[in-house]
Amino acid sequence: MADVVVLGQVGRDLVVRTRSLPEAGGSTTAEDLRELLGGKGANQAVALAQLGVPVALVGVVGDDGPGRQVRDQAAADGIDVSCVVVRPDAGTALLLDLVEDGGRRRLVEHVPPEVLLTPGDVAAAAGELRSCQVLLAQLQQPGDAIRAALGLVPDTAFVVSDGAPADEATRAAVIARAAVVRADAVEAGRLAGRPLAGVDEAREAAAELLTAGPRLVALSVGEAGDLVVWRAGPTLGAASRDPEVDPRWADGEVLVPHLGPPPMDPTGAGDAYAAVLTASLLGGAGPEEAAWAASAAAAVTVAHAGGRPQLDAGALGEVIRRHRAA
Amino acid sequence: MADVVVLGQVGRDLVVRTRSLPEAGGSTTAEDLRELLGGKGANQAVALAQLGVPVALVGVVGDDGPGRQVRDQAAADGIDVSCVVVRPDAGTALLLDLVEDGGRRRLVEHVPPEVLLTPGDVAAAAGELRSCQVLLAQLQQPGDAIRAALGLVPDTAFVVSDGAPADEATRAAVIARAAVVRADAVEAGRLAGRPLAGVDEAREAAAELLTAGPRLVALSVGEAGDLVVWRAGPTLGAASRDPEVDPRWADGEVLVPHLGPPPMDPTGAGDAYAAVLTASLLGGAGPEEAAWAASAAAAVTVAHAGGRPQLDAGALGEVIRRHRAA
Repeated sequence: MADVVVLGQVGRDLVVRTRSLPEAGGSTTAEDLRELLGGKGANQAVALAQLGVPVALVGVVGDDGPGRQVRDQAAADGIDVSCVVVRPDAGTALLLDLVEDGGRRRLVEHVPPEVLLTPGDVAAAAGELRSCQVLLAQLQQPGDAIRAALGLVPDTAFVVSDGAPADEATRAAVIARAAVVRADAVEAGRLAGRPLAGVDEAREAAAELLTAGPRLVALSVGEAGDLVVWRAGPTLGAASRDPEVDPRWADGEVLVPHLGPPPMDPTGAGDAYAAVLTASLLGGAGPEEAAWAASAAAAVTVAHAGGRPQLDAGALGEVIRRHRAA
Repeated sequence: MADVVVLGQVGRDLVVRTRSLPEAGGSTTAEDLRELLGGKGANQAVALAQLGVPVALVGVVGDDGPGRQVRDQAAADGIDVSCVVVRPDAGTALLLDLVEDGGRRRLVEHVPPEVLLTPGDVAAAAGELRSCQVLLAQLQQPGDAIRAALGLVPDTAFVVSDGAPADEATRAAVIARAAVVRADAVEAGRLAGRPLAGVDEAREAAAELLTAGPRLVALSVGEAGDLVVWRAGPTLGAASRDPEVDPRWADGEVLVPHLGPPPMDPTGAGDAYAAVLTASLLGGAGPEEAAWAASAAAAVTVAHAGGRPQLDAGALGEVIRRHRAA
């Protein structure tokens, strides 16, 4: 069985690179066009598989050519796709990633409601969920499906949430159960119940969230980078059952700046971040080490067009070493 | 065998409708997304099939999922696809049609060089070409492939050219052999060897082209509509072998304005125009009648998103009747 179950969107990522988009009424030639397995759930599962973590994906594709293609691609990437539902009469989600020279990026998403997860889809994945060590749940999925998944993971597993849920019941259930909460700047505001500006306000919101349950909160704070705040306790990874406080896990925080050169295409940065944060913690890394590895993964991912990660442990270490040398 | 052989691009037309495209760095949700058989050659062949004209398509798709899908779709549309080449190791052409509310449209084309026609592809279609009544050739295809096709059509067939060729040898061969020359405003300038502005300059260019061989020249003149100029001779359709001058075919011209309401999406207007001009002339229509039917087909096509035509003879007649009543 898989160590990590990722619950989230799976679809296709159509990456179209142009020098610049034409004006209204105009036309241009694409410099490059690639059609990849995409969607936030699939991107995270690919990142985990690239780092050697056994991973299962719970998501939905349409019963169409593109759906079969992305499911096959996920399987070829080493992901357990037995819980990827092929929904009859539904169209597979498409993420259109329009990338212009200079890293200007526009996203157009088409996610038919039929390819969102239902509690039934989650129930069908009960076997995987009951035996996992980590659930990585994307909160863009419907609240009832997320709550169903939270109810199935064993007490020994830790939960990583990514994003902000649409409804209050799901928000409460996630905060009560998740050990790790990850959110971008906008989502962090929705989790906190108020817009957040700057590092100080993010730190305040993180402290509130930590009081309510989670051990570690990772909030993107825009230009300043990613703020990771944690509270004392035993090592988070399920491999360790030592109840003593790990010295690396004393109360603490780190603000990791954006690493690497300016982004070529920001798509997928958050997915790589969440996946590597998860993989690092599962592997027994301390919170600060996990935060740096996650930021390095985001830096590696924004260096190429498309949201699909291209990770290996060596590349992540190299990004961190270069940053420290600079 | 098919009456009309269309030589041109076949690919997929991904139509993405949004309220408005996001700013650089932003994202939005698509209102609608459709993936259709597209490409100028396929659109023209679909239009001919919809009007009941037996039609074969000569074009190239990639040896990939989308390629098989569009070829199957063309066959389902009643097009003879026996001369649609499936090219190994090539990616199928994609036309990305970004449509915003209010009819603002941006096209991004991705046509890998491997899916352009070669003289070998044309030679493989010799059976169809030698027995056709009309060749409708898109001049965006490589010159050597176009010249190969011109050498195969029988003397009894007439040739319709659409667009402007890339090289002078092909331009000369086309002007010498084509009975009907169709070009949009930019292409008309390339055919004439100088930029054309307004109806008078288009009329002058048309007169020059008519002197060099063609019987009928149809040039788009932007806001003013479509200028169609012809010279006297027998009925053009292959069905008629009467050498006498048809009274409808005395020297003449007509300037047909844009018909119908403002475009919702201009994609495919030129393809529908060329196809219906061809079908009308093949069916024995006079030049003025064919010009009006072609403009009506363009009007019907720009009323919906995507380049795929949705034609029937009744709809074309209705557009013309409404215009005359208005």
